Order: sequence, then C-alpha cells, then structure tokens
Amino acid sequence: MKPFLSEDFLLQTETAKELYHTYAVGMPIIDYHNHLPPDEIADNKQFKTITELWLKGDHYKWRAMRANGVDENDITGTADDYTKFKVWAATVPYTMRNPLYHWTHLELKRAFDIEALLSSDNAEKIYHLCNEKLPGLTTQALLKKFNVEVACTTDDPSDTLEHHIRIRKEHPHLKVFPAFRPDKSIAVENVGAYNDYLAKLGSAANVEIHSYPRLLEALRRRFDFFHANGCRISDHGLETMYADDFTQQDLDDIFSKLRMRKALTEAEINTFKSGTLHFICEWYAEKKWTQQFHIGALRNNNERLLKKLGADAGVDSIGDWQVAQAMSKFFNRLDKEGKLARTIIYNNNPSHNAVYATMIGNFQGDGIPGKIQFGSGWWFLDQKNGMEEQMNILSNMGLLSRFVGMITDSRSFLSWPRHEYFRRILCNLIGNDVENGELPNDTKWLGKMVQDICYYNAKHYFGV
Amino acid sequence: MKPFLSEDFLLQTETAKELYHTYAVGMPIIDYHNHLPPDEIADNKQFKTITELWLKGDHYKWRAMRANGVDENDITGTADDYTKFKVWAATVPYTMRNPLYHWTHLELKRAFDIEALLSSDNAEKIYHLCNEKLPGLTTQALLKKFNVEVACTTDDPSDTLEHHIRIRKEHPHLKVFPAFRPDKSIAVENVGAYNDYLAKLGSAANVEIHSYPRLLEALRRRFDFFHANGCRISDHGLETMYADDFTQQDLDDIFSKLRMRKALTEAEINTFKSGTLHFICEWYAEKKWTQQFHIGALRNNNERLLKKLGADAGVDSIGDWQVAQAMSKFFNRLDKEGKLARTIIYNNNPSHNAVYATMIGNFQGDGIPGKIQFGSGWWFLDQKNGMEEQMNILSNMGLLSRFVGMITDSRSFLSWPRHEYFRRILCNLIGNDVENGELPNDTKWLGKMVQDICYYNAKHYFGV
Amino acid sequence: MKPFLSEDFLLQTETAKELYHTYAVGMPIIDYHNHLPPDEIADNKQFKTITELWLKGDHYKWRAMRANGVDENDITGTADDYTKFKVWAATVPYTMRNPLYHWTHLELKRAFDIEALLSSDNAEKIYHLCNEKLPGLTTQALLKKFNVEVACTTDDPSDTLEHHIRIRKEHPHLKVFPAFRPDKSIAVENVGAYNDYLAKLGSAANVEIHSYPRLLEALRRRFDFFHANGCRISDHGLETMYADDFTQQDLDDIFSKLRMRKALTEAEINTFKSGTLHFICEWYAEKKWTQQFHIGALRNNNERLLKKLGADAGVDSIGDWQVAQAMSKFFNRLDKEGKLARTIIYNNNPSHNAVYATMIGNFQGDGIPGKIQFGSGWWFLDQKNGMEEQMNILSNMGLLSRFVGMITDSRSFLSWPRHEYFRRILCNLIGNDVENGELPNDTKWLGKMVQDICYYNAKHYFGV
Repeated sequence: MKPFLSEDFLLQTETAKELYHTYAVGMPIIDYHNHLPPDEIADNKQFKTITELWLKGDHYKWRAMRANGVDENDITGTADDYTKFKVWAATVPYTMRNPLYHWTHLELKRAFDIEALLSSDNAEKIYHLCNEKLPGLTTQALLKKFNVEVACTTDDPSDTLEHHIRIRKEHPHLKVFPAFRPDKSIAVENVGAYNDYLAKLGSAANVEIHSYPRLLEALRRRFDFFHANGCRISDHGLETMYADDFTQQDLDDIFSKLRMRKALTEAEINTFKSGTLHFICEWYAEKKWTQQFHIGALRNNNERLLKKLGADAGVDSIGDWQVAQAMSKFFNRLDKEGKLARTIIYNNNPSHNAVYATMIGNFQGDGIPGKIQFGSGWWFLDQKNGMEEQMNILSNMGLLSRFVGMITDSRSFLSWPRHEYFRRILCNLIGNDVENGELPNDTKWLGKMVQDICYYNAKHYFGV
Repeated sequence: MKPFLSEDFLLQTETAKELYHTYAVGMPIIDYHNHLPPDEIADNKQFKTITELWLKGDHYKWRAMRANGVDENDITGTADDYTKFKVWAATVPYTMRNPLYHWTHLELKRAFDIEALLSSDNAEKIYHLCNEKLPGLTTQALLKKFNVEVACTTDDPSDTLEHHIRIRKEHPHLKVFPAFRPDKSIAVENVGAYNDYLAKLGSAANVEIHSYPRLLEALRRRFDFFHANGCRISDHGLETMYADDFTQQDLDDIFSKLRMRKALTEAEINTFKSGTLHFICEWYAEKKWTQQFHIGALRNNNERLLKKLGADAGVDSIGDWQVAQAMSKFFNRLDKEGKLARTIIYNNNPSHNAVYATMIGNFQGDGIPGKIQFGSGWWFLDQKNGMEEQMNILSNMGLLSRFVGMITDSRSFLSWPRHEYFRRILCNLIGNDVENGELPNDTKWLGKMVQDICYYNAKHYFGV
Repeated sequence: MKPFLSEDFLLQTETAKELYHTYAVGMPIIDYHNHLPPDEIADNKQFKTITELWLKGDHYKWRAMRANGVDENDITGTADDYTKFKVWAATVPYTMRNPLYHWTHLELKRAFDIEALLSSDNAEKIYHLCNEKLPGLTTQALLKKFNVEVACTTDDPSDTLEHHIRIRKEHPHLKVFPAFRPDKSIAVENVGAYNDYLAKLGSAANVEIHSYPRLLEALRRRFDFFHANGCRISDHGLETMYADDFTQQDLDDIFSKLRMRKALTEAEINTFKSGTLHFICEWYAEKKWTQQFHIGALRNNNERLLKKLGADAGVDSIGDWQVAQAMSKFFNRLDKEGKLARTIIYNNNPSHNAVYATMIGNFQGDGIPGKIQFGSGWWFLDQKNGMEEQMNILSNMGLLSRFVGMITDSRSFLSWPRHEYFRRILCNLIGNDVENGELPNDTKWLGKMVQDICYYNAKHYFGV
C-alpha cells in the first residue's frame, strides 16, 4: 500500500516516476489562463489570515460546505475568519474522493510544509501555523516559490490595465499579462445592464457608442490598447457557440433596439452574438493572438444565492446545449476568410469531449503544430478523472504530443500545485502505456513529450 | 486468479475486503424505492415455482431472452413454468458480462444456497431444488433473511393503501411504507386515458374533478391520506424536466380542453406538467417529504409488444432529451419560494451524469447534509460500470460521503443482493484509492463513511 | 515491463493470452463493411510505392500530419511519393497514444515483417524495404495473407457492379460482395447535385425518373440488380435518424419541387428522407437482407479543404444530434408492419453509446439471436478505448455473446490487422473479468464466445 500523498503520488509505475521526477518536475509554469487579481500581484499583497488567502472567493469550497450542511453564514456570511476556517476544516474529511481533498493537502504541503490531514481535530493548530507563515507567502513570493514563469489574468476591455502597467514598471522581471475577455460586450440578454456597460466601455475607449459600428470601434480601440500592453491572448465564456447568419443591417437594427432599451428576441440575441464574435475574432487572427473559448457552463442556477452573493458563488453547473454544428460553422467562416487565429476550446461537459477533440482536427493547418487545441479539463472536469479523460480522448482523436497543457483557471494564489497534479497524471498515463507494452520504452522521447506538454509547447505556441 | 463469486467478489484490495467484511456487511437495508406489490407482503405470499418468483414480471430477463433468440411464447406466453425456466437457464451462459449473470448467481447463492452456474445442463435439477425451498422463502421471510429494515413501494394517488394498512395492522414490526407517485395525474398525452384516470382519482378522493382547482384538491386529499398512512416519500417518472412558465389561467384553460377530450398541443402538455408538478412539489416541502425524480427513460418503443404485453415489457430504453436548463429552472423556482424539499434525482443516460452531479450542488443548503442527492445508478445503469461511474462522478463533483446509497428499484423479492453488489463496489472503489495512495489509510473513518452510505445517511435523511 | 507490440500485445492476463492464441487467432476474417475499391481487387493491383498503398486516400494520416504542422502540399499536394512518406515518418513519433501509432507498426510488422519503429531516422530505409516487397503484396495476395474469407464493399445504386461481376467470373474463389448504399438518393439538400444524380440513377436503372414513384421504381430495379449479383447487405450514412410522418402526397409534392430545382425547407428534407428510407428498408426485410446505419458524423467541416480535396479529406468530425426518439419511431414503424430486417446501428458519438445499446433491445425477436446489433466502434471510436467502451456497454445492456464483431470500414488494403487489434482487446476484456473473479474460469465456453464474436456470429448472421 502506498502512503497518501507521497513523493510518488499518482505515479503507479517506474516509468511514470522517472518521467515525473526526471523530466516534468523542473519545468517552469506557464499559466496562460487564470483569474488572479493583478492589483494583488502589483501590491505584492500579504494576506492577514489563511482564511483570506484560501477561503475567500473559493466557490469550490463554499459549495462543498453547503453540501455538507454548513450554515451559509459560516461560509460566506459575517462569521469571523477563524470560524470560517473551522467549518472548512470540519468539512475536509467529508470531501474524500473529491479533488478538494487532494488540492487541500497538496496546497498545505507545498506552500506551508504541513503534512497533517486537516480536520476539526487540528483546525486550530493548523490555522495558527498557516497564519504564521503568511509573511513569507506574499503574492509575488508564491509566484516565485512555484516557479511560475508566465501568468495571464482575465480582464474586461473596459479595464484600465493600470495594475498590469504597474507590474511591468515596478516589477519588470514578472511576466504577468492581461487577457482580453469581452463577454460583457455581447451580454445582451439584460438590456439595462448592457446599456450600463456600454457607458463604461465608451468611456474607457473615449468613443460615443451610439451605433453598432461605434461599438466595434470602441472594442477595437481597447483591443489595440491591450495589444500595446503585451496582451496576446483573449478569452470568451460562452454557453454554446453562436454561428447564426447575420448582415450588417441586422446588427445595426439589433443595436438600435438595444439602445432603445427594448428586450431582444432569442434569435436577435444569437444573431448579435454571432456577428460580434466573428468580427472580434478576425482581429485576433490579424494580430496573431490566441483565442480561447470556455464553453458549456450553466451559470447562476440559484437566484436566491446569486442575489445574496453575486456571480461566482458556487451555484454554477454543467449545461447540455448542442454545440457541434455551430462550432463547425463558426470556425469554418473564419477559416474560409483566412482569419482563424490560434484557438483553444475548453469543454465543461464530459459527454462533449469527443466532439471537441474531433472538431479541432478539422481546422488544423498553416504549418503550426497543434494550431487548434482542445484545452485541459475545465472547471468541474479539472480533477483526475476529468484530466485523464481529456488527455485520453485527445490522444485517441488528435495529437497529445502537441498539447499546450495545464492552466489553473483559479482565483487563488495557492492553486499552483494543480500543475503538479496535472503533470503527475500525465506521466502516469504514459507510464502505464509503456508498462503495458502499448508504447515503446523510449524514455528519452517520452520525457521530451512530457516536457513539451508541461512547458515547451505553450512556450512556442504563445511565443512568450 | 480469483474464483468466480467468492466471498471477496469484486473486492480487489485488502482495504476493500476489510471495509466490506468489517463495516458494510452487517448494515441493515433501507430500500427506499422499489416496486414490490404490497399485497404480496401483507399476504406473506409463498410462491408456487421459482418461475413465478423469478421470471414472471422480470423484463430484464425477458429482454435478454429475446436478444438470445428465444421464442416470445416461451418468455411471456402460454408455455408452462418449467419450460420458461429452461429457456432462461439456456440463456444464462449467453449473458456473461451482463449484470444478469452476476445477479442470477448471487440470488441463487444467497436465497437458495445454490453455488452451481445455471445452464441448460442443470436446469431441471436447479428448478426442483429451488422449488423445494420456496416454503421457507415467503415474501416476509425474504425481507427478514436479507435484513431489510425499511422498504418503500410505489403507489398511485388513487390507491386505497389497503394493503399497507393491513401490513401496519397485522405485521406492525414491518417497516413497509407507500410512496406517492402521481405520474398519471400529469399523463395528459392520452386524453381518453387521462379522463378515465380522473374518474378513478376523483372517486378515491371523493371530489368531483370538474376544474383544475378541483384536480389539485383531489390530489391534495390523497397526499394528506398518504401522509396520514406513513408516507414521506414521493416519486416521479419523467422523460425530462418540465419547467415552462405558466399562469393559473393557462392551467384552467388546458384542463377545460382536456375535459372536453380535445388533444393538447405539445406546448400545452408541457405547461400543464410544469404547473402541476410545481404545485405538488410545494406540498412535499411543506410536509418535509423527500421527492424523487426518475428522469430520462424512453418507454414503450415497441408498440407490437406493448399491445401484447402492456407496459414494462422490456421494450424501454434510454432517451437523450436535454435536461439541464429545465431542471435548473424547476428547482430554482421552488428554492426561491423556500419550498424546495429534500430531493433525489435519478438519471438514466450515463452521458448526463455530470449534469446531474453538478446540478445538485446548486441547491444544497438549509443545514441538511446532502439535501439534494444524485441518486444511485438507475435501471440500465444499475450495474457495476454504471454504479462506479455514478459514484466516481458524484465523488468528483460533490460529496460521496453524504450519499444516501442504494435501492433495488425492483419488482422482485429476490433482488436484495443488489445491495450487497453495491456495497462491494463501493468498498472496492475506496479500497483502490487507499491502495494507490489517493486516500489516507484511515480505515476507521472510511469504515464510518461506508456505513453512512450503506445505511446511516438514508436513516437520517428520511428520518425513518 | 512488457515490450512494445509483442506477441502478447494488449493481453494482460494468462486467460487473455490463452483466449487469443488458442481461440481467436485462427479465425478467418469476415469484413462485412469496408470501402475497398472493387476494381483494384478485380485487377489484383500491384502498388508502385508504399506511399500509394498506405498514404494515398488515408485521411486519418492526413489529419495527423496537419495537426503536426506539416505543409498541405506534402500531405495531399504535388510532393513526390518519397517526400510524402518522409513527412509521415517524421509525424509517427508524435502520434504516440493515437491509434495510428499502433496501426502503423502492426501493419509494418504483419504485412512487411518490419519491426522497427518508423521515424525520420529510418524513413529512407523503410521506404525502400517496403517498396521491394510490394510485388508480393498485391490486393489479392493481401486478402489471402490476412485470411479474409469475405469482404463487402460499399456501392452506389447507380454502380454497374462491373468489377464485382468480373471478380465473380475471373476469381470465383474470392468472396467479395457489393453493399447497397443509396445515400445519394436521399441527399436532397443540394438540389442541383441531386438532379444530376437522378440522371445517373435513371440511366443505370433504365427508368425516366419524372415522379416520386419512378424514383422508387429506379431504386427498386437497382436493388434487384444488386440482389441478383450477390448483395445481401445495405448501408446508410446518416447524420441522425429520420422518422417524420409522411404521406404519399407529401413525397410526390416534394419530389416535384426538387425536379423544378427549388430548394427544400428543412421539414421537407426530413419528410423526404423519412419516407424514402422507410420504403427502401421494407425491401431489405422482404429479401432478408441486413441493413446497416452509420449515424452521427458531422462531415465536411472545412470548406476550404473540401473544395481543394473533395469529400473524405480528413475534415469530418463527431456530431451531437439527438437520436433516440427518431430511431425508436423509425424502427417501430417497420416492426409494426413486420418489415424490420436484421439491423446494425453504428454510432460515432461515444456519449450516445448507451442509447444505441439499449435501443437494440427494444426490437430483438423473430427467434434470430442478436437480430438487432449495436455495431463495433465506428470511425473516431475505432480505437482501443472506443472498442472497449462499445463492448462494455453492449455487455452491460445487451448480449456481448451475440455480437457480430469487427469490420475495418477502411479504404486501405493494409488495414486487416485491425481485426487482430479488436480480437486482442476482446480477449483482454474477458481475461480481466476471469482474473478478477467476475466471470467463471470456463475457458472452453469463453473460447467459443470469442470465436463466435470473431467469426461464427457473423457467418450465421449474414448467411455467407
């Protein structure tokens, strides 16, 4: 029997151990998609308590505590930091087999050198132990500790990028970049909120957005501004792909209706999203960016908690929209124009994995290895089974060797061990195949493949 | 090599064996959903032949025999009991790798102490051996033999519950309860059958159902009657979730149309189901019941056999309706009102598992551990792979530790070993994780977790 | 550690080895569905280079090379045969974990006795080694070398079958049969191409197709002609099932519209396909054919490459249409009439496997073991995981023992080792179950089951 969370954690064969310890472990991290707050990086923030660093904003943990019967006030309410830590500690043993159980103890071990298994029994002791170490674990110290070479945040087009600018000026050794995420510019379901957003966007771009062409102009200005500030990556969070036919007139008319604060029909919403996304994606190709699409989350299911806590409160789940035809049409329309940028599609519904893994094969080309990527297991799939399935399906239906690998997609500065987790799983999959005689025992080549997936593929792909 | 169906059947590690033999095996069974006939329990029925006990009404076996090329007359027709047993015995070796092969031999072993593998060769001998033991295997004897502490049947609102009343009166030690399943009260696709049903329901409730409010009144009276008779669980069999918007006027109008025996449009059907389900579910919350939803079966595909044999003839299969958005809307509407009862959702399509497992997380709360449950592998998923997938996905996306566990969902008094089957699979999953260093080797805690899932979680959840 | 691609490749247990080497390996191949060109069989064609035999027309390899960043000209363009081989050889190491890596080396080993692992390093040497052996590897020599007892090609109703007639006349020992694939007769999306096709079909059938009844007459004549030429199998490639209601008048009207070269609505397209498929399928039942349905491919996603290279250029992927209800309705309509032929349904989307595996159970009967079949892993699922899933789901939801087994579905004369691959996987699944005590250690019965699935089931099912 193997001890829990040993140095050979998740590595079942000698080949896996060799691949991980010899090849994977030393690779720097390129975390090309996360939700870290750039101001906290610029400020080199030091956290007051482990609760602030670990539980505030972590909707994965909130969700687990709710399922465990914890009172909402102790999760997201007015309870003090120690109480919040205690209820989490009491929940931890109930999370066995959930990725939180692994993440929790990997993070305690790697960031705080704590090997104990967290529970009610040792909550108080561990709370204080962690808090004592916080001065050495500022945001920048954590980036360094975990060998993070590049980190890309997620930013609205209306963002001033002031914190990113500050990082470049004050901490020029840090490779922290913004990513352009214009979701709000197509969020036309809520006409009131959309008009409010246009005011904000127009102000940032210094454009009076009184027509559809002016909307594009404002977005383009912000796009250019982001480009000038080192941004080379975009991201879109979409329920499903939008690829309806559209004309300039359609978009003008729908925009006028929006500006008159009239609610749109579902068809109009889809037309507007389809057209606007298409134009923005043309820019990505023009400037040789990489475009990312996170598809399939069903968000804000619980209005009671949404009202109380806002978005990202742990009441999101997996949607089951059909996606294949629209995705094909969307990418084909860009490809025909010669304007399909490097693309990464992330999938949130495991039953769609095969659709994604085969879709990318239709649009490979331009002599760019792995130009179109099936992104790493996303959100609810960001666990051992989910990552294994993503890599197995990508292997079966595409080229694993050209995969750009893992991202944390996290809001927390403690999530870096997820890269370790991913690398162990990757090495283990390959090791098992070698052991079973399904891959040749060519550790040198396989070690190169592991290093490519952990680091070099992303480095070359993004040109960072 | 491990012998077939040994005492360590399905237990691959020492930890799994310890968890099963030390912790799981002694737990009583709470079978909170099945289709056992309460009259046969009240009568303490003794079966005439193993065919009557085992093959009559078992559409799983019928289906396997059809696929094996057996003549329908020998399956469901006029053939005598011995002939029917013989054709089944001849089919058994052809069911290898199907759950029927395991169930068959577990049931022969546990109920009849027969270790032989059934086939044409020993059919005659085993037929007589089983028949000889039937006097000791009455319905109540079987409940006792398999340590069944609680069993909940499935009953139409129009049911008199006379057999349940008789059980409580004549056999007060038996914890056998009804469950409220008002499927027919929303089965408005067939207007003729629906009007016939209303007559029956109205008569049971002593209500003249001439309007929609009177339909609700009749249902409510039956609901109260069930409650008074110990019922605390409801069940709904639905193709997909129904969550259309509705007004009182809509429902009144649709009901009038129904009463005039006019066929409804698909939109009207969905509106009617959405509204009526919503009102009924409010009652469940009010009285602190648990509501169950069995979703996604595509029924009665073969009209030829449906006409010949009626429903539940083994011509049902798995549907692929989209379900996420409607399910979210349905539960959210109840949650916003503070009227979301304890809920168990059962899924019939394995590609929807992740949608279900993440949906429950959106509505957890009220300080009830595992308030919203992703039910055990249902129908076609009630086999080793299906159960493993349900538990793995629940583990990854929720809290396995709070799972209320297994049910037989069976029409047969011989199906109790399915709980044993489930428990072995559960212990094996956990044992493998410990062996691989993915869970700590804390047998005491894991043993408690196993006992919770096998028994205590259900006991506390249902308050039986 | 097991050597790569050893004699016990994919066989993890002693039972698996015994089942494969004692029972499976000697079984002849019945390849009842492929896309081999009958003219090349009739001509006993000898290939000029390994490139012609191996890379020309193999869109799997093209697709992998595109994903690997190879220039399109070296894949499908004007590059010479050696260059094309070299870029493929350079790609091979990047295909590790993709089925191409296994297929490539199995084919080199079994057809050319080459054990080396192909890469840039040995590309030149292997190119010449292979070319030298081509004189001994004509099309007919390959059929013999791989013990192919029966092969069925895929042919349009307008085909003259001249090559099949020639095979029967000149090579009477070869059991090579046509299969009837009338996809173009319902491809009414493109009105222009459809009218062109009707001209071709009418000419082949010697019928002036000026009305819908005349279309059916032409198709029926060709059906009879195929039947007279030994054809007993049909095949349909469909995005999803078509089971709309239709009347004779509907079909007449839609056909008139087609003939007037007016584009059809989506509803008209579906009605036309539904009705026409239904009538054709009645003929299959009448003449006791087997009908095959390949469902769920999303084809020709990349118009740029479609225009350049035509169909089957490696820009197809997996669709996610809903299929359960229409499939049920389609088969039920035939079954009610007593006109449901032996049927094989092939699925391209792994998340639909359970729907298919349970659908077949609804329509079994007529005393034909396994009358309705869930076909072997198709296209993107034609790999180890895909085959394992198909067999596991079929096992869990039907009778694996009655499965008619593997087909190459290939355009290449080198694909025969895919049968070996399938057989190893089959034996391994069963071997693991025996090893784990989940099947009895009855090698004789299991060996018979393996032989049935590899050979005898197909032999009896098709009556060849």
